[in-house]
Amino acid sequence: MNYPGGVVQTNTHIVNYKNRGMNLEEDLNESNRYYQQQDIAYIYKKPTPIQITKVEYPSRKNAVIKEAYFKEPSTTDYNGIYRKYYIDFEAKETKNSTSFPLSNIHPHQIKHLKNILRHGGIAFLIIRFTTKNETYLLDGNDFFLFLENENRKSIPYSYFLEKGKKIPFGYHPRLPYLKVVDEIIGGSYESKENK
Amino acid sequence: MNYPGGVVQTNTHIVNYKNRGMNLEEDLNESNRYYQQQDIAYIYKKPTPIQITKVEYPSRKNAVIKEAYFKEPSTTDYNGIYRKYYIDFEAKETKNSTSFPLSNIHPHQIKHLKNILRHGGIAFLIIRFTTKNETYLLDGNDFFLFLENENRKSIPYSYFLEKGKKIPFGYHPRLPYLKVVDEIIGGSYESKENK
Repeated sequence: MNYPGGVVQTNTHIVNYKNRGMNLEEDLNESNRYYQQQDIAYIYKKPTPIQITKVEYPSRKNAVIKEAYFKEPSTTDYNGIYRKYYIDFEAKETKNSTSFPLSNIHPHQIKHLKNILRHGGIAFLIIRFTTKNETYLLDGNDFFLFLENENRKSIPYSYFLEKGKKIPFGYHPRLPYLKVVDEIIGGSYESKENK
Repeated sequence: MNYPGGVVQTNTHIVNYKNRGMNLEEDLNESNRYYQQQDIAYIYKKPTPIQITKVEYPSRKNAVIKEAYFKEPSTTDYNGIYRKYYIDFEAKETKNSTSFPLSNIHPHQIKHLKNILRHGGIAFLIIRFTTKNETYLLDGNDFFLFLENENRKSIPYSYFLEKGKKIPFGYHPRLPYLKVVDEIIGGSYESKENK
């Protein structure tokens, strides 16, 4: 982390006060907007997949959907580009304070993350433990290390402490998760820059 | 193109017969499924963005959307990963046989494609002239070359002949557009493989 301890504390206090009630999705959307405005990264949340079954056209240009259903997503919620890399992740909150239940991630989302890693993208999870107000980035490689070695239905909080990277709260952006992605790129991923 | 002339002809005839009435979106979805199944690329169409204004919950688990509206997309329709590259494109059909009207692409989609190019992604348009039953891939760099040098409201068909690359119809996949992307990677884009 490039934050001196004092600054983190200050930012955390400001943010906790100002953004009371902000959830993970709102934090990520605000952070992604910031990254876009600063021309740092172009990462977006995909629209919610909907099955439309009835549409009315009161006028030629205005369609109103009158019946539709939520569909299960076939991929993750967020993707985009950063430092020439294809970025892909799923973000989830849990009220559970001792572990993250794997039932929160659909099997085809897990398969999707694995496909992305195999093809040279950067894939990860962002998990917030809401009761602790702590957010962790778990690199896809460490996520699959867990799945391959453990036969558990949830990832214990201790695994996030051990293998995950805590994302500090910030002011702008609110959740500076790309600082953690920088560490991943510098680490297990082969650098693509200056090439 | 790696297709000997005779094979293209045969495939074209089969496809035209079998897939009468298939539109560009269906062709792309089928082709993307093929690329996924063959572990070649993971490119998906994003869900249509919807503004939901009324939802009913007849039971705890079954939500029914009772009122919603189509929103204008802020990015392009398709993105994903291929050969380690971030891939991003917009696909449109036109009934116009002499030019592609630029009103089909929203200004923020144009800006998005430019952002992707600047950050090292591969960005392009796939345009089908339905009356000719011809589909072209126009690389983002050539698209912006046109926009910067011409003050026209449409891209003439001749520009696609000159700068675009025709995507032949295939059998599996139906629209093998990644063959054309291979040419782009080998050409104006810096190769990221073997690095």
